[in-house]
Amino acid sequence: MDPKEFCIRGKQMVDYIVDYRESLDKHRKVFPEVKPGYLRPLLPDAAPEEAESFEDVMSDMERVIMPGASCPAATELEIVMLDWLGKALQLPVEFLSGSGGGGGGVIQRTASDATLMSMLSARHKTLTKLGREQPNQVDGKHLSKLVAYMSDQAHSSVERAAIIEAVRVRKLPSDEKFSMRGVELEKAIKQDKENGLIPFYLCATLGTTSSCAFDNILELGPICQREGIWMHIDAAYAGSAFICPEFRPLLNGVEFADSFDFNAHKWMGATFDCSPMWVKSRKDIVNSLKVEPPYLKHIHSESDIITDYRHWQISLGRKFSSLKLWFVLRLFGIKKMQELILSDVAMAREFEEFVRKDERFEVTNEVKLGLVCFALKGSNELNRHLLEAVNREGKIHITPTELRSKYTLRFVICWGNTRESVRFAWEYISSKATALLSSPSE
Amino acid sequence: MDPKEFCIRGKQMVDYIVDYRESLDKHRKVFPEVKPGYLRPLLPDAAPEEAESFEDVMSDMERVIMPGASCPAATELEIVMLDWLGKALQLPVEFLSGSGGGGGGVIQRTASDATLMSMLSARHKTLTKLGREQPNQVDGKHLSKLVAYMSDQAHSSVERAAIIEAVRVRKLPSDEKFSMRGVELEKAIKQDKENGLIPFYLCATLGTTSSCAFDNILELGPICQREGIWMHIDAAYAGSAFICPEFRPLLNGVEFADSFDFNAHKWMGATFDCSPMWVKSRKDIVNSLKVEPPYLKHIHSESDIITDYRHWQISLGRKFSSLKLWFVLRLFGIKKMQELILSDVAMAREFEEFVRKDERFEVTNEVKLGLVCFALKGSNELNRHLLEAVNREGKIHITPTELRSKYTLRFVICWGNTRESVRFAWEYISSKATALLSSPSE
Repeated sequence: MDPKEFCIRGKQMVDYIVDYRESLDKHRKVFPEVKPGYLRPLLPDAAPEEAESFEDVMSDMERVIMPGASCPAATELEIVMLDWLGKALQLPVEFLSGSGGGGGGVIQRTASDATLMSMLSARHKTLTKLGREQPNQVDGKHLSKLVAYMSDQAHSSVERAAIIEAVRVRKLPSDEKFSMRGVELEKAIKQDKENGLIPFYLCATLGTTSSCAFDNILELGPICQREGIWMHIDAAYAGSAFICPEFRPLLNGVEFADSFDFNAHKWMGATFDCSPMWVKSRKDIVNSLKVEPPYLKHIHSESDIITDYRHWQISLGRKFSSLKLWFVLRLFGIKKMQELILSDVAMAREFEEFVRKDERFEVTNEVKLGLVCFALKGSNELNRHLLEAVNREGKIHITPTELRSKYTLRFVICWGNTRESVRFAWEYISSKATALLSSPSE
Repeated sequence: MDPKEFCIRGKQMVDYIVDYRESLDKHRKVFPEVKPGYLRPLLPDAAPEEAESFEDVMSDMERVIMPGASCPAATELEIVMLDWLGKALQLPVEFLSGSGGGGGGVIQRTASDATLMSMLSARHKTLTKLGREQPNQVDGKHLSKLVAYMSDQAHSSVERAAIIEAVRVRKLPSDEKFSMRGVELEKAIKQDKENGLIPFYLCATLGTTSSCAFDNILELGPICQREGIWMHIDAAYAGSAFICPEFRPLLNGVEFADSFDFNAHKWMGATFDCSPMWVKSRKDIVNSLKVEPPYLKHIHSESDIITDYRHWQISLGRKFSSLKLWFVLRLFGIKKMQELILSDVAMAREFEEFVRKDERFEVTNEVKLGLVCFALKGSNELNRHLLEAVNREGKIHITPTELRSKYTLRFVICWGNTRESVRFAWEYISSKATALLSSPSE
């Protein structure tokens, strides 16, 4: 949406809000008359390929959302949007709510929340299996033996989830491409079982934070299935790219996963926060956190149609976040979103080429999506100086990381970047490198 | 803000967003030049008593926020807004960041998140004290002995936090006013210690969900201090009312608490979600969840000026929620907010009077704020029928609860209620009762 249209649409929304508020007393009921499951039949089965007009979406507000007000519309739209998005990602049908197979999606706030919830589900499932122990009867008999796995490249949220849930976590060494591999998992499982531990959870990352590396879920998945280990996939950044056929192969192996999450607020145009998560077995997530006080009792029980998302998350209250997906998916359409992501990756490859053509520099990751890791050939100290020089004037901003203790700069393409801004950035970085390398102190 | 002004201001905001986006390339730097701590001196020490104009707040956007962009402005405004709000609530100075005493505030998403974080801090603090055990070295030696306390009226989030954090939780019986009392806590501590357990955490509720009852923190607090038990206060609903001198005595005893939280999105005009929380010792909350990956390293270390809120919460990413408090506190001013709350409570008392004057009914809670619990004198079945009859047509909506297995209806005053709507609601309920009591089946 260009600034001019945003201006018009934004003001229409303000009017819409005012009209809605003023009509409350007269025309609206405080509780909707719709029956559970009313919403799905009102919408198509999948997100549109082509962009739709703002008018069409807004007229559907009255037709689809308003009859169901906030409840059950918020929940039912979320169910359907997660199915739309799941189909766009070509997730296995078991993850879709409409498949009737017991799976489904939910919008978490961030990927950290999804990691916490998936680990909790896995912990509950394993503890329940082991002697039908109640998870809140903490005798520590089994709990202290549980062990979760992550790669040495995984996000800090995995370690944090393990701290919160009081389980051990073991970091597996990644390979030379920073990918977690089956052989290391096999080794760890064998060792841990010999030591009396119980492997129960693995968080695989598709698109690591440091270098956008991909764990080998085609190797890891079958091992997890064989061992009864819950495999969660954290694709916080990379997930959006899987709507492109060109990048969907990176998700191969998701069929072995128990849960999958990515941040639509990272690379899909939704505003923060919006982190869609899918599980194959909704009962595992629901049962792990179910407490039913009398003031929250209702007459419906969980089914393919009825979903009570408060059991799927840490907080009790929820926002109507599915509206974000509804607007984004319809106003862009799948084709346009694919084009935007392909164009961003093309820009990253262009930046990669700039780096490769300059022999003072090296590229330090395998560029698969929008992140290019690079460094001056030379010491960490030198690259630290380069980062400082680049960021000093506030013209561009890049962040560092460490890859096998090599200090590395990270250049990432975001929504809104242009080929001109990428070229400007490279020339700016290059000029700072020239100045740095010719200064007397280096 | 009336609808007409909302319409004008909303459209001004749309223009502001467009202008901001269009000025990015030309005038804005990608990284601010300000020094940590830049923001506090630009603002007054406390929230205004009288309402300020929208123009004044917006012109401060350019003066105060924009020079610090999102970082560090988001963090620094949050620190100062929590001090403003803490002062308005007359919290002890140890909870304020500006006091230099090691305390401070943070905006959690919901009260459930605050309960989880406070329990985590307590768990970490206790486990660290007991033999300097690392919280992520789960040998279960001490963990399985920890016991948390809540009243039988406390919110389900306490039980959920205990499940997540793998600690025992014990529900203490509340007294005839649904208040948790010192004598029951003493009894439980004695028993639990005799059984080798380690009491470490108590969640006291001010304004319970079911009946807006108040735990006796003046009794509970000193016991917790003596026993080294972390006292968290969950005032999710009632907290907003403590800005009124008339209701501030309900918060007496907060000086014994380690942490305090309420939902500004419930009764203070902030949109969901916005749950301000304060702790006396920021190091306890920060240390409980600190994991430092290389891509998040920075040169600043935690101090009275530097706050890294990612250590204070479950998620890594954050929103600029302090802007909500900034706008609300300034556009209303403390006096107007006090008036609104007093007026809401007056309406609840009016509804209470209606119920008391009708001898078919009884009031089943002590009405202190905006919640009136009431029931027809008679069976639970009868009251269940009444609830159904009242909610059937969608004219008003009330929710039930159980108080000592007595089925009870709950009438709550929210923002936007008027004396007319309260009278209408009572007459409607009363007419449904008349119809129900005169029907042949009863």
